[in-house]
Amino acid sequence: MLKELDLGMRMPKEEYGALMEELKPRLAQLQQEIIREKIPVVILFEGLSAAGKGEITNSLIVGFDARGFTVYNTRPPEPSERRLPWLARFAEKMPSRGRMAIFDRAWYSALSVEPLPKEELKQRLREVNRFERQLADDGCLILKYFLYISKKEQRKRLEALERAKSTAWRVTKEDFKNLNRHGEITDFFDSMIEKTNSPYASWNAVAATDKRYVRAAVFSSIAENLEKALAKKREGAPKAAFAPKVDPCFRLLPHTGIGELDLKKSVDEEEYRERLKEYQDKLFKLQNKLYLKKIPVIVAYEGNDAAGKGGNIKRVAEALDARGYAVTPIAAPTPDELQHQYLWRFWRALPRTGHFAIFDRTWYGRVLVERVEGLTSTARVNQAYNEINEFESMLVRWGAVIFKFWLAIDKDEQLRRFEDRQNTPEKQWKITEEDWRNREKWDAYAQAVDDMFRYTNTDFAPWVAVESNCKRYARLKTLETMIETLQNRL
Amino acid sequence: MLKELDLGMRMPKEEYGALMEELKPRLAQLQQEIIREKIPVVILFEGLSAAGKGEITNSLIVGFDARGFTVYNTRPPEPSERRLPWLARFAEKMPSRGRMAIFDRAWYSALSVEPLPKEELKQRLREVNRFERQLADDGCLILKYFLYISKKEQRKRLEALERAKSTAWRVTKEDFKNLNRHGEITDFFDSMIEKTNSPYASWNAVAATDKRYVRAAVFSSIAENLEKALAKKREGAPKAAFAPKVDPCFRLLPHTGIGELDLKKSVDEEEYRERLKEYQDKLFKLQNKLYLKKIPVIVAYEGNDAAGKGGNIKRVAEALDARGYAVTPIAAPTPDELQHQYLWRFWRALPRTGHFAIFDRTWYGRVLVERVEGLTSTARVNQAYNEINEFESMLVRWGAVIFKFWLAIDKDEQLRRFEDRQNTPEKQWKITEEDWRNREKWDAYAQAVDDMFRYTNTDFAPWVAVESNCKRYARLKTLETMIETLQNRL
Repeated sequence: MLKELDLGMRMPKEEYGALMEELKPRLAQLQQEIIREKIPVVILFEGLSAAGKGEITNSLIVGFDARGFTVYNTRPPEPSERRLPWLARFAEKMPSRGRMAIFDRAWYSALSVEPLPKEELKQRLREVNRFERQLADDGCLILKYFLYISKKEQRKRLEALERAKSTAWRVTKEDFKNLNRHGEITDFFDSMIEKTNSPYASWNAVAATDKRYVRAAVFSSIAENLEKALAKKREGAPKAAFAPKVDPCFRLLPHTGIGELDLKKSVDEEEYRERLKEYQDKLFKLQNKLYLKKIPVIVAYEGNDAAGKGGNIKRVAEALDARGYAVTPIAAPTPDELQHQYLWRFWRALPRTGHFAIFDRTWYGRVLVERVEGLTSTARVNQAYNEINEFESMLVRWGAVIFKFWLAIDKDEQLRRFEDRQNTPEKQWKITEEDWRNREKWDAYAQAVDDMFRYTNTDFAPWVAVESNCKRYARLKTLETMIETLQNRL
Repeated sequence: MLKELDLGMRMPKEEYGALMEELKPRLAQLQQEIIREKIPVVILFEGLSAAGKGEITNSLIVGFDARGFTVYNTRPPEPSERRLPWLARFAEKMPSRGRMAIFDRAWYSALSVEPLPKEELKQRLREVNRFERQLADDGCLILKYFLYISKKEQRKRLEALERAKSTAWRVTKEDFKNLNRHGEITDFFDSMIEKTNSPYASWNAVAATDKRYVRAAVFSSIAENLEKALAKKREGAPKAAFAPKVDPCFRLLPHTGIGELDLKKSVDEEEYRERLKEYQDKLFKLQNKLYLKKIPVIVAYEGNDAAGKGGNIKRVAEALDARGYAVTPIAAPTPDELQHQYLWRFWRALPRTGHFAIFDRTWYGRVLVERVEGLTSTARVNQAYNEINEFESMLVRWGAVIFKFWLAIDKDEQLRRFEDRQNTPEKQWKITEEDWRNREKWDAYAQAVDDMFRYTNTDFAPWVAVESNCKRYARLKTLETMIETLQNRL
């Protein structure tokens, strides 16, 4: 792609002037429509040093209402960012609906700035494609521009920057070293572009020799793409039937239907006390070792209402050093969260390496409550299973251990617990009208849970059904499961 | 305070058991009430190494609902945090109303971990007191515990930690070095405690030799303080008359009343074009120098509706490299922002050193729209002027240059612009019903602006009134002001 560019492309001043007179108000107008239609937009500029990424960013935003965009200048990751999955620092910057995020270098810099082992690069490229597809499926417009110049032009610019007192600091030794590897670097980027040039996030390579030409090419392309996105948005999404599609690369394990669980399993008080103490001590010691080995642990709790998630989490948390874990309760999304792709809030709640993140309800809300209550279109629910598998596979590749606990009780037991809550003053806050309404949809939820098992029971992040009619039994089972898996991992 | 502690304090097992049986459910109950009454709570633990800060945190949270608190383990600042005012990384972690933030070390660690020059320490202590008072005035309960042990006890604990394989990594050479300075360190902390022991955030020093005694002392104190805060909250706040109080340490400069401005000042198109280009080039070069010297610049825009803030900001932004500035538009607070002290969202939008932060409307909304529309109690508005001066003085001490521009137009000019907006299709989005309603309160706003000048026109962050009936004149004046001040600074 890069090597075929005609680097001699230039635009005469008059032609440029006339074009801009038309383009600038059009872009300003389009930005307002993007805001109104609530389309999130990512515009990213990659390119060789001195190719003009900063210049194009500056000239682009001049026409935009400052209330509608943010510019990000990507730098090497901070120490705390290095303790997260590599894409996390970009994922958290994704724009809310109607906003633009403009990146002077973005995730592609994390592929090219430091040399990566071949396999790591391959995995990251795959993760980029998945990440971009997920954003696009959520309605985000992704525009990627690569600014390219010849070796001669690059040398000329670097030398000019170096000569001027006010810009000399911008040029590094690295830049000149890379100049000598111009051909090799071109090959690298060509291959990167080819592997990430997808229908949902295609690349635009731009010959960046002439400033006017670059602006004309980039601005026109942005205007066209914004118009296309607006037209598509106004068309609306087609209705779909429930038909989840999971990438066949994920190996799905067989699972026990929740109807087949033996919910009678129980443990008596005395045995419980003894084993609880033993397990908590073990988990505490494991936490120490996990911390030293910098292994992150993610514990995801789902379950029927009143299945005992809170008490179960408490027994796990009690065992842990407070400085090494956080419990994230997942309630209805905030207005800000609703304006983002639904995994956004989970990207932001990931543990650092060596830490535990415990989720009291999780991203599976997408295929449970959001599906059953019709809060999300069936078309998007269909995509969610795969999106979740991709998200979890990314976490596992990063090094995380993931526990997914489904706390199961039967309908009678739930009724008993609801009534108990209703009748005990200090428990009344735990029971709401909504709980009773959900209970009426018991069968629809059961179906959703079975589908969730069917499509997300991957070999790298399998579900563990926890029989919870007896809370004591359930608590010991989650602790035991964690201890066993973590010991194997260490 | 520390030296007077009776380090022999212990609690027998039975007494402890009985106390806890009463305390634990009481604390759990109190947490629920704190959530319901929407009281933000900060609990911070400081103390010598191995004094048991982690242990007390762990045991405290076991009784709490995980959905209501966050534990923070304070570590040395990240590189990006070092490019912000020293308190910023704590300020952004302040709990929303109804939540608890539990700190294993907090801002006090930034006073003691690294040796500070005497004057810097003095200033930081003052900033701590102001910070805590501002939080308390906003309804936040701040509980500070210092855990203290003898040198002998500390040695015993450090040696035990070092012996055990799983905890040896926690003990550093620094810890043993500090052990030998036990007396000196005690003196330091005693002085720190004395200087930050305020009525709104008092210290509790706890003899931490005996685990049971520490828990009993800390838990009882927390329970009592939560009860007091609940009682106070239920009493409600008294009504107040408008009577701002500004700390006499702030030197307030005389100012021109907005009624006395000569709004007829103007510049013709030709002169404007010429000088605009010249000023923008100058500002661009200054940005480079400011970046190299790591000086942060804060540009605060306020003004009458339709005074031309957007266009003015645009002319400043056009001059700047996009990677070095951000424009933050300030609209009505989000639900999350409403749940915090009102300066919280500005703490989070500060520039890094060397960068520009441009605010399209600012923290002055507190004493303008919030005052005029009665969105904030008069008692809190009275405190706001001083709070703002303190906030800005902290920014200046950090090294920031602050510009505060008031863009002034007269009532006739505003009407012309409103009507123009109404009658021009592509400008209609800029005018709302609210603008017309605000216009009816022109005099009340004018009074609020004059009071704002009166109480916040400090010598370190003075207001600049910008006559804006002629937009061209206004744009040149802001640019010229910035250039002059920034040149003087460099």
